[in-house]
Amino acid sequence: MRVRRVAVIGAGHGGQAMAAYLGLLGFRVALYNRSAAPLEPIAAAGGIFLEGEVGGFGPVERVACTIGPELRRYRLVMVVVPATAHRQVARWCAPFLGDGQVVVLHPGRTGGALAFHTALREAGNRADVLVGEAQTLLFASRVTGPARVRIYGFKRQVRAAALPAARNAELLATLREVLPLFTAADSVLETSLDNIGAVFHPAPLLLNAARVESGEPFEYYRQGISPAVARVVEALDAERLAVARALGLRLRSARQWLAEAYGAWGAGLYEAIQANPAYRGIGAPLSVEHRYLDEDVPASLVPMAALGRRLGVPTPVMDGIIHLAGALRGTDYWRCGRSLAEMGLEGMSAEQIQRWVTLGEMDEAMVV
Amino acid sequence: MRVRRVAVIGAGHGGQAMAAYLGLLGFRVALYNRSAAPLEPIAAAGGIFLEGEVGGFGPVERVACTIGPELRRYRLVMVVVPATAHRQVARWCAPFLGDGQVVVLHPGRTGGALAFHTALREAGNRADVLVGEAQTLLFASRVTGPARVRIYGFKRQVRAAALPAARNAELLATLREVLPLFTAADSVLETSLDNIGAVFHPAPLLLNAARVESGEPFEYYRQGISPAVARVVEALDAERLAVARALGLRLRSARQWLAEAYGAWGAGLYEAIQANPAYRGIGAPLSVEHRYLDEDVPASLVPMAALGRRLGVPTPVMDGIIHLAGALRGTDYWRCGRSLAEMGLEGMSAEQIQRWVTLGEMDEAMVV
Repeated sequence: MRVRRVAVIGAGHGGQAMAAYLGLLGFRVALYNRSAAPLEPIAAAGGIFLEGEVGGFGPVERVACTIGPELRRYRLVMVVVPATAHRQVARWCAPFLGDGQVVVLHPGRTGGALAFHTALREAGNRADVLVGEAQTLLFASRVTGPARVRIYGFKRQVRAAALPAARNAELLATLREVLPLFTAADSVLETSLDNIGAVFHPAPLLLNAARVESGEPFEYYRQGISPAVARVVEALDAERLAVARALGLRLRSARQWLAEAYGAWGAGLYEAIQANPAYRGIGAPLSVEHRYLDEDVPASLVPMAALGRRLGVPTPVMDGIIHLAGALRGTDYWRCGRSLAEMGLEGMSAEQIQRWVTLGEMDEAMVV
Repeated sequence: MRVRRVAVIGAGHGGQAMAAYLGLLGFRVALYNRSAAPLEPIAAAGGIFLEGEVGGFGPVERVACTIGPELRRYRLVMVVVPATAHRQVARWCAPFLGDGQVVVLHPGRTGGALAFHTALREAGNRADVLVGEAQTLLFASRVTGPARVRIYGFKRQVRAAALPAARNAELLATLREVLPLFTAADSVLETSLDNIGAVFHPAPLLLNAARVESGEPFEYYRQGISPAVARVVEALDAERLAVARALGLRLRSARQWLAEAYGAWGAGLYEAIQANPAYRGIGAPLSVEHRYLDEDVPASLVPMAALGRRLGVPTPVMDGIIHLAGALRGTDYWRCGRSLAEMGLEGMSAEQIQRWVTLGEMDEAMVV
């Protein structure tokens, strides 16, 4: 059964770009969004104008701010929302997802597929819905006007994994019918922990908080990650790698990632960042009210630290960033962030987690 | 017995100002310092030139970089060194301190007198040496040349406490013979926890790390403590007050302190800092290699957090600052900072700590 129809949930820049691009490729696309505002011009135009790396018009056959039984007709569901909304989207979709549908989070951040799956089950959905997550959003994009979006560039390759990984082939076959740039990750543990945004987003924003609030522009990577800030980022990265190791994964460090993704080498992280021409001119956020804290802390650092705590891996720098960012934003990211319970991993050992994400085997007592 | 001779340990700006001022007042002053460099011009001149709030020449009868039996002749010993050196100074003095001598730390930061007393005992000194600490250094000063120091201004009043507080009258009588601006604090818990530097120094420096390293000058308080940074500082301050409360102390908040010390009022800490004319023009440190981290973290935040942990008071923001500052400076402040053991408080309950610092009563099992 070939994929003909794709539902896209989320009409931010990524969701609009996804809907437009798939429409342009000839798929029948539905676009859902909680608020109607971005949808109205799309409904009026019958689709989305695409510019940049890909130009044209992507028809969208259906736009809606409520999900109904028609979701069942879309074999592939692309979720392109901030990770903090994954559970809510799952609850929203739960009554209408059935056997054979495939849901992919772009991206999952840390534990997105696990949280989505758990929320579906909690909402009473027992259907054979295959949930997976991509390691990153496949393109850089920006909304440039009503019903108009620009794609700056595609990633060369994006890894994705199904939950459980035993069904990776099935997920990838479906996904690649639509977007061939996806390749299989080992499991959602890999896509979840190979989360470079978790390393590069919250810490430098936190350690530049007053400068961001001063309103003076500065370059986020090249000026915001000074030698001292780079040492904190490296300590955080080492904790991420230690959590991954406790789950049997050997991931590359942020510094190795810079070398592989950009050919940017350096004796340390600071030098590697300075050596990366792709970071030139990337400005810092203009406010601390920004997804670098509000998404990356609760949906990346909190679940990583929760895994660390469960597995006996100390994450003091990660914990510190979570608490300081919470104090800075006046919120408790521990409470509102992605917990082991939300990911359906409460009480599991490293081995039980591995068995569940790879083979789908879960001890009876663990089943929600 | 009137005080005639005062030993000053430490020849930084504070120690030189202390020695010069006491010399000018007519006391016979010895000045000790680990390194000989600042002492040589003082030895050559026979004292220190004083300028600023007080002008003149303060004779110094003895300068030395080793301490010997002659220390016994100085009834009052003023320790004016970074708090991270308190234990080392105690070990240095231990063989030469005897009954009736009074040692005062200017200031103790958090747990200075406790740490000094414990180090004396550990070094085998069992004499009746009265150890106390001041809440802050009594003047603002700066070294302006060889054997030359400027006092910018005196605090109106500085609180000090003896260990135990039952001997406050004795300590204050001795101290006030020399410097009448001292008044009695409840106990060293008050001088140790009413530590505003611990609140205002490490967190803003950490949250401005890249800006400090950029070399661009900015005002430490008025620009470095933006609204978001102020929220972190207030969360930290609330933890300090909670630790104090667990020890039976009701201390004023940093915001109340700004109102009392400077008449600077505001709806929140940010507004109070903006309203404080005394903070105008105070530049930020030029490097993260600075006592705001290297002294205030190990000798203020670490002992406060250790007390919190012992007493079941969560200090997640404080812990976070300690860990992030450690990562930033490439050191483990938990390990090198002031522990409960160093303060001689290991295993004590809140009530045992209170009894020890106020009455000098210690359970047999606790005696070093």
